[in-house]
Amino acid sequence: MKELREAILKQGFGIGHDIVKVDMFLNHRLDIALLTNIGQAFYEAFQDEPVDMILTIEASGIAAAITTAQAFGNLPVIFAKKSRTTSTLSSDVYEAKVYSFTHKSENFIRIAKNYLPKGSNVLIIDDFLANGEAAEGLAEIVRQAGAHVAGIGVCIEKGFQAGGQKLRNEGYRVVSLATVTGIENGRLQLADADDAD
Amino acid sequence: MKELREAILKQGFGIGHDIVKVDMFLNHRLDIALLTNIGQAFYEAFQDEPVDMILTIEASGIAAAITTAQAFGNLPVIFAKKSRTTSTLSSDVYEAKVYSFTHKSENFIRIAKNYLPKGSNVLIIDDFLANGEAAEGLAEIVRQAGAHVAGIGVCIEKGFQAGGQKLRNEGYRVVSLATVTGIENGRLQLADADDAD
Repeated sequence: MKELREAILKQGFGIGHDIVKVDMFLNHRLDIALLTNIGQAFYEAFQDEPVDMILTIEASGIAAAITTAQAFGNLPVIFAKKSRTTSTLSSDVYEAKVYSFTHKSENFIRIAKNYLPKGSNVLIIDDFLANGEAAEGLAEIVRQAGAHVAGIGVCIEKGFQAGGQKLRNEGYRVVSLATVTGIENGRLQLADADDAD
Repeated sequence: MKELREAILKQGFGIGHDIVKVDMFLNHRLDIALLTNIGQAFYEAFQDEPVDMILTIEASGIAAAITTAQAFGNLPVIFAKKSRTTSTLSSDVYEAKVYSFTHKSENFIRIAKNYLPKGSNVLIIDDFLANGEAAEGLAEIVRQAGAHVAGIGVCIEKGFQAGGQKLRNEGYRVVSLATVTGIENGRLQLADADDAD
């Protein structure tokens, strides 16, 4: 997606070899016009799939999930909640373990069972795909529910980390709107084109 | 806001004397059509104020903040991040202490300084107003920045808790789209009308 690639090059920056900072438009300050177009791009990428709901994870996945749901004609969004501890209400929730490489800690994500009916077609949307832990956790919850992953859409894929390849090898259709291929002296390197061009 | 009051009465429920559950449309599963109309209602309530940006707090304030920003013609949204610990990067962030009555714990909320310029007119949006701790923390951060609170918009005010009165006494213009006045045998009691009727 050209507009997102331009925002990344103009406003984003890298720290060290693997930290991609896009706080200024994607996950602290939100550029709403850009996010609305991101939702439209995910709609164009997945419009031929059956999609009943959008699934994401708090907090920074929520924005793109909402604009994607709007582009699909106001589908419901469910966002998984994060917790450091396993649920004490485990009969009411689906839960998956997610390792955070950023914080070097194990977390749990969970969704109330009644919002994810068996047989649903679920489009997973997130801001970032790096090691794929969050997407794998969401897909695991969809499996627990007896529902179907219609696809996985991510705004920015870190092409130099393993998550995207792993999810594609598992058979998921993964669409990235921009792919960061590396960081050189604080400058983000991008793939020339991507799934949504 | 009639549509929100109807959703609360039809889908919401109460637990004990003070827990308002609206997970099914407002803060776990999101009803995007309703949230889009909520954004429009906040626009109508605050359109005569100068507003440069929408400020909220992760995670469940983000949805209404985004749809409000869209209704205002795609203003930027900034969402404060929560943390259990005070920031180690305190020269780069504004920070406020917020007590959570739900979790009976003290948290910190913070915003990167460069996203909240001095003199900005900031509309605070959140899903709930109960004891007012979150809104007070956000207003405190706006003060630290030398910016101006244009108003405070909340989807649901718990009229039986003190936050709304306290903020109004402090001089803030607080607009609630629905006011829960009490809980009787699990049923939510609502005020007949509200600011957005």
